[in-house]
Amino acid sequence: MKHQNAKTKMGSDVFIQNTLELESLLAGSRALVEVELNSLLPSTATAPEKIHQAIRWSVFAGGKRFRPSLLLATGQAFGAAINSLVRTACAFEMVHTYSLIHDDLPAMDDDDLRRGRPTCHVRFDEATAILAGDALQTLAFQTIAEDDRLKAETRIALITELSRAAGTPEGMVGGQALDMEAETRQVNGAQLEEIHRLKTGALIVAAARSGAIIGEASEKELAAITSYASQVGLLFQITDDFLDVTATAEDLGKTPGKDAQSNKATYPGLFGMDETRAAAAKAHRDACAALNQIKRPTDILRRIADFILHRTG
Amino acid sequence: MKHQNAKTKMGSDVFIQNTLELESLLAGSRALVEVELNSLLPSTATAPEKIHQAIRWSVFAGGKRFRPSLLLATGQAFGAAINSLVRTACAFEMVHTYSLIHDDLPAMDDDDLRRGRPTCHVRFDEATAILAGDALQTLAFQTIAEDDRLKAETRIALITELSRAAGTPEGMVGGQALDMEAETRQVNGAQLEEIHRLKTGALIVAAARSGAIIGEASEKELAAITSYASQVGLLFQITDDFLDVTATAEDLGKTPGKDAQSNKATYPGLFGMDETRAAAAKAHRDACAALNQIKRPTDILRRIADFILHRTG
Repeated sequence: MKHQNAKTKMGSDVFIQNTLELESLLAGSRALVEVELNSLLPSTATAPEKIHQAIRWSVFAGGKRFRPSLLLATGQAFGAAINSLVRTACAFEMVHTYSLIHDDLPAMDDDDLRRGRPTCHVRFDEATAILAGDALQTLAFQTIAEDDRLKAETRIALITELSRAAGTPEGMVGGQALDMEAETRQVNGAQLEEIHRLKTGALIVAAARSGAIIGEASEKELAAITSYASQVGLLFQITDDFLDVTATAEDLGKTPGKDAQSNKATYPGLFGMDETRAAAAKAHRDACAALNQIKRPTDILRRIADFILHRTG
Repeated sequence: MKHQNAKTKMGSDVFIQNTLELESLLAGSRALVEVELNSLLPSTATAPEKIHQAIRWSVFAGGKRFRPSLLLATGQAFGAAINSLVRTACAFEMVHTYSLIHDDLPAMDDDDLRRGRPTCHVRFDEATAILAGDALQTLAFQTIAEDDRLKAETRIALITELSRAAGTPEGMVGGQALDMEAETRQVNGAQLEEIHRLKTGALIVAAARSGAIIGEASEKELAAITSYASQVGLLFQITDDFLDVTATAEDLGKTPGKDAQSNKATYPGLFGMDETRAAAAKAHRDACAALNQIKRPTDILRRIADFILHRTG
């Protein structure tokens, strides 16, 4: 989607400059989160070694750290200190990684490669991958519960956010279960949006809301962030589907075209490329409109939306 | 172990009377926990239906509800109201059930039957069983986080207890990973105890401690409860191994002799039946000795230890 939108939304020079600034900012968030994850995860030398190796294999697999970065950016927009945000950001990445490990299992999507490397059950074994995912979920909740930089009330609010967004019926696992059911039948546009809203959107929304909660956002601000992040989550999924059709294996770090092969419902499959492009542009516009309701320095959140609209991998 | 110990520890009439009283008390706890679980779990009519059916299939499979009962009994010994205990008790049962669902998977223990019924992945499918386990773990933390009968500080203490006891390296998943490693090599008595301490003991200890935490036990009382519950957890595992050798399939609701077949390290396998009986008696004695340090009405906790020593299924 890059070229078309880069030209319609803003001048290319400004776009490139903003992208470079954002990329260095996201690289900073990523580095910070990875240092913290490294200190939170059990060492590979701690017994039982294999499961800790498997956990680190999957957590340090070159992920974009999108959810933690969004949490950090949102929290900072509301004036929260980085060190009050970073552990909760790591907790979201742990839940995201656990879901990838379990998604890749033979009984689920049966993926051998992720980001160009063997998936957890291929590198280790299925039992270890199941347990590594289980342990990462547990550690996510433990990490927030033990974050003594936050008040107990705040920690409880964050655990509530994370658990609702990760579970069923209103969260990620609910979305994965819906997605599985959808593989055996035809879904329409509304059903596809519902699957994505739960499967990937819920955790993205909860990450942004958690940043805002730590930053003590008002109810009205929290509602605007929820609306922003819902659109960003939708945009993320639309561009994901789009890239599965258009991108190269090298850009993606996985085999493109897999969605179509496995009969997964996708935006391009249901609506065609032109309507998919239009839906992405609309989600981007709606995300930015939501930010306009907040009187805070949200420029970075706007650039994150731009960045996703134009991403190539 | 029943007859030998019933005669040495107490007169049979008293033993039978105490057992009957305890059984009706445990039945009461079980009923209470099941009513609450029923209200906490998504309905089977809520979409996506299959995963909610799978969750309820496994949660309502006739379990003994030992961890919740221990939590309720401990909390009541410290004067906590039942309705301040019951949701946390349910959270422990959710984590226990999730671990059984994942343990039974083909890549793990590959069990087709549990408590005389098809296991979750047999009744539904593997992907649904993986997700049902994942969702139950999430719901456990959500349940405590949303229990507004408890102060935020208490909820955080409980989530910390539960997550440490469920995770790795110092909890259930760590124990399962150790157990898997042990299947491929010879283990000694100390290693066997370490596996059990983590795999089943940690959650039992955390259940008892959680009851005590809700009951606002002092540090000294909490230490005594930890010691009591560690011995009860050990006793539980020793009698489990013992029953796998001596009990009938009907008593167990699963195939006895499975441990020996699968080369699992067990107490009878390592130490023989006589030493196993002696180890059970010692764990029981040590559990009761720990209770003597607490000036609270702990009679019910003592009877729980008696009950496990003499259990037949």
